[in-house]
Amino acid sequence: MIDKGLLIGVGVGPGDPELLTLKAVRALECADVVAHFAKAGNPSNARATAEKYLRPAARELQLLYPVTTEHPTAEAAYRSAIDQFFDESAALIAEHLEAGKVVAVLSEGDPLFFGSYMHIHIRLMNRFRTEVIPGVTAMSGCWSAAGLPIVQGDDVLTVLPGTLGQDELVRRLRQNEPTVVMKLGRNLPKVRRSLIESNRLDNAIYVERGTMRNERLMPLAQKTDDSAPYFAIVLVTNRWWQS
Amino acid sequence: MIDKGLLIGVGVGPGDPELLTLKAVRALECADVVAHFAKAGNPSNARATAEKYLRPAARELQLLYPVTTEHPTAEAAYRSAIDQFFDESAALIAEHLEAGKVVAVLSEGDPLFFGSYMHIHIRLMNRFRTEVIPGVTAMSGCWSAAGLPIVQGDDVLTVLPGTLGQDELVRRLRQNEPTVVMKLGRNLPKVRRSLIESNRLDNAIYVERGTMRNERLMPLAQKTDDSAPYFAIVLVTNRWWQS
Repeated sequence: MIDKGLLIGVGVGPGDPELLTLKAVRALECADVVAHFAKAGNPSNARATAEKYLRPAARELQLLYPVTTEHPTAEAAYRSAIDQFFDESAALIAEHLEAGKVVAVLSEGDPLFFGSYMHIHIRLMNRFRTEVIPGVTAMSGCWSAAGLPIVQGDDVLTVLPGTLGQDELVRRLRQNEPTVVMKLGRNLPKVRRSLIESNRLDNAIYVERGTMRNERLMPLAQKTDDSAPYFAIVLVTNRWWQS
Repeated sequence: MIDKGLLIGVGVGPGDPELLTLKAVRALECADVVAHFAKAGNPSNARATAEKYLRPAARELQLLYPVTTEHPTAEAAYRSAIDQFFDESAALIAEHLEAGKVVAVLSEGDPLFFGSYMHIHIRLMNRFRTEVIPGVTAMSGCWSAAGLPIVQGDDVLTVLPGTLGQDELVRRLRQNEPTVVMKLGRNLPKVRRSLIESNRLDNAIYVERGTMRNERLMPLAQKTDDSAPYFAIVLVTNRWWQS
């Protein structure tokens, strides 16, 4: 096993290329193969963030999700398709590891926090050496861009995926605690209704492409449309200093 | 206001000096003044992490917490002492900003996630230009060190400070969801009792100094003593792949 390759999950942070860690940059400087996930027809966000640190000589491995629209994750056909995709992706990566290569798998944000990398990791961790380089999460990027202290002292932070049902979102939001809602995309109308029902809309900050050049940031109540990228985030806090 | 200085909250990450972001390193390269918090008699952890990136010419400003033991944060005398300390610290920093300097305030992990920097930020944000550079959180460092995918899909993540009361900890842990318990220190015995009472001890991973050279990582059930540094973390998940 010692002579085999090394699998590295590389967190590239929330989008600003300056928010890669030194360790992530160094990993990219030594990787033989750089793998990244993308939806068919879309460039990989993680690759775009890390682009300037990629060695021209590195081989790139593009892993294209088999589905382009989101499905309830409980749906059997979706789960089966996505499991097969991760099996096949892991097999592709394993070929390079068997050949003794260093394979870096790019992850937006932090690899083990809602990242696709984890599905590769759990499939290969018993066969190969692995290393995970943590990254700045999208939510850290967003609350920093907003200058919003999200938690302090005895606060409890809850991170909710926007894919949850409305009743569940409302129940959580009614706890009246600092809350981050991720995975907005087409879930935004439901998230907005949940915030209204839980009486927290006025505490909600909408952040799109936090830390990136085209970042947008506003009180959600002032956002007049319901379109949002999947990686947009809503921050809900009772301490919105600038209001 | 334009000609005044710039206040930068710099997240230095979880402890490995390689986990500073490029942006954090660049901020330290241009800072005239570098401020850091520490307990009296202790070196600043954040400074130790960032040490090799500090300019020799930069002026250092050490901000010493007035209390060395933790108190329930509701205690009036503690709150009053700590508020006064942040007022005085902000005033010291403001002097340098008035003189047009760039002041970097070091934060372990991420500045606006349970960090002392936020108390400076809210006191000065309306008087001076500010910038917050997000960092890799201690919890990301810990679950990466453990190779532990903390959340995926529709998971909800809860982050609890170990300073909460036992009943409250038990109630939260009984939700049976991925949970991070921070601020251990002398709260560890109470956190352990809460994990036992909620029947989750066997899902708890203890991580001390995650990403640092002297990192320790073990199932909490196998840790035979109850001493822990304040920045140790417990990760609780139903998906502990290596068990």
